[in-house]
Amino acid sequence: MSADKIIVIGHKSPDTDSICSALGYAAYKQAQGVNAEAGMTAEPNKETMFALEKFGVVAPELVTSVPAKQKLILVDHNEEGQAVDGMRDAEIVEIIDHHRLGGISTASPLFVHIEPVGCTSTIIANMFWKNDVKMSTSVAGLLLSAILSDTVLFKSPTCTQQDKDTAAKLAEEACVDLKEYGMAMLKAGAGIDGMTPEQVADTDLKAFEFGTVKAIISQISVMDPQEVLDIKADLLAAMKANCQAKGVELALLMVTDIMNESTHLLVAGEPQDLVAKAFAKPVEDSCVYLPGVMSRKKQIVPPMTEAAK
Amino acid sequence: MSADKIIVIGHKSPDTDSICSALGYAAYKQAQGVNAEAGMTAEPNKETMFALEKFGVVAPELVTSVPAKQKLILVDHNEEGQAVDGMRDAEIVEIIDHHRLGGISTASPLFVHIEPVGCTSTIIANMFWKNDVKMSTSVAGLLLSAILSDTVLFKSPTCTQQDKDTAAKLAEEACVDLKEYGMAMLKAGAGIDGMTPEQVADTDLKAFEFGTVKAIISQISVMDPQEVLDIKADLLAAMKANCQAKGVELALLMVTDIMNESTHLLVAGEPQDLVAKAFAKPVEDSCVYLPGVMSRKKQIVPPMTEAAK
Repeated sequence: MSADKIIVIGHKSPDTDSICSALGYAAYKQAQGVNAEAGMTAEPNKETMFALEKFGVVAPELVTSVPAKQKLILVDHNEEGQAVDGMRDAEIVEIIDHHRLGGISTASPLFVHIEPVGCTSTIIANMFWKNDVKMSTSVAGLLLSAILSDTVLFKSPTCTQQDKDTAAKLAEEACVDLKEYGMAMLKAGAGIDGMTPEQVADTDLKAFEFGTVKAIISQISVMDPQEVLDIKADLLAAMKANCQAKGVELALLMVTDIMNESTHLLVAGEPQDLVAKAFAKPVEDSCVYLPGVMSRKKQIVPPMTEAAK
Repeated sequence: MSADKIIVIGHKSPDTDSICSALGYAAYKQAQGVNAEAGMTAEPNKETMFALEKFGVVAPELVTSVPAKQKLILVDHNEEGQAVDGMRDAEIVEIIDHHRLGGISTASPLFVHIEPVGCTSTIIANMFWKNDVKMSTSVAGLLLSAILSDTVLFKSPTCTQQDKDTAAKLAEEACVDLKEYGMAMLKAGAGIDGMTPEQVADTDLKAFEFGTVKAIISQISVMDPQEVLDIKADLLAAMKANCQAKGVELALLMVTDIMNESTHLLVAGEPQDLVAKAFAKPVEDSCVYLPGVMSRKKQIVPPMTEAAK
């Protein structure tokens, strides 16, 4: 990237908002004659790739560190620990964000716009509109994708009316059906495409002890649980192999349905009646369906602990 | 102040912007149905009092510390060291400012609007206009006063075109002549009214050594230097008394003319030819007129040091 460019960049481990808001804000600044260009701290995830491809936009340049005095616009973060390497000695000229204040101090006055909404791209879309800056169809699509991602299709508790209104307007400008596109994008990011049953069974695996019972609990969060349940036999085999390999008696796999806010809990090993007791439901065909359950820490471990007493 | 109110408050040692932007932003929030009220960390200075009286506004409530969890809107600052006592355990819900980022971190997302303009009140006036919130004549007058103060009637290097445009619009709404009112307000704040010659001679006094010469240099910045020069004989007497009291040979008093960006340098004690050499000008009637000189640190001390070599 040429040295006199201002780099617009999101946080490390970028999500869809961090990459799309960088692209959107760079377009906004360029439209005002500013020599700005989007960067990204790491490769886009599957969900973001889906959005970029849908709207025909090339991913930003990979920027893993910046030289001293590099002019930066931070989007979707304002904490040094989350920022691109070298940020401390760079010059932050603007911050557009929707998080808490993260303790950054700067040498000089700058432009900071932080709002407690569900997504940075909500703020940026409204800056386009308030200041009568023309927004391309592809930028509208990217900003929309970020809102749908950050608010999990408006289901997140962080989602505000402003996010919903902004997304509706962006969907019109981007010529997509909001719900249909949102489901497709989230599904692209939260599927098991290309994963082996063993990889699925190992996702986010943690070990626990319930009374005298040693157990492991994994969790995979998906848009389409049926896709996972379709390979249940293979998953149970992988879970049993895990029990042997790790010397535990019980293996649980939470197949969490993001959209329906529920979990299909797969059960391998013994004692299965401990699971039945914990959730006051029989284990049928190695599975218990748990509506409303999303959190291992808050909704699986405590009843299992209680049942083992 | 009632416990459920949001307090809008500026920095410690409040200047005109800190008090007027608090009053202006409280009015802005109230117009939107928010239970907000302005506070101030200390009594207004003479300049601010002049503005409050001119527009018939009562000073905000004195708030020297706030209880834990008090909801705060910070205006004209964003550093803990400058904030009202108790800020750390309060809840900052908004920040409106024109300074550098000062390292505050918060527990939750909030609304932050910082712009690199000359005055917080410039930002607030534009929020009224952008969001079609009706502004009273008195609020227009207060916001105008803050801009004229912070930019020293547009002479400060921090002044932007936006400050000038905003002030012009506010002057119309407040029905005052911008320049005439600005001069009167600055003069009210930067006069020697009620000060003894000794107090004037002691203003911001610092000690120096130039070669073998021990000296003291004071500085008073005023709108109307003639008002100070009118009591020159008394000032010189006070300066000579200072020389004796402090055991130094030379006393200088910078009478700095804010508007004309110049300094009348009064000289008491000896050697007067050191002063003449430093500024390549004769000391006439115990005075040297120095156009363009405003800074003791940058424009008085270095030539005096050089002349003493």
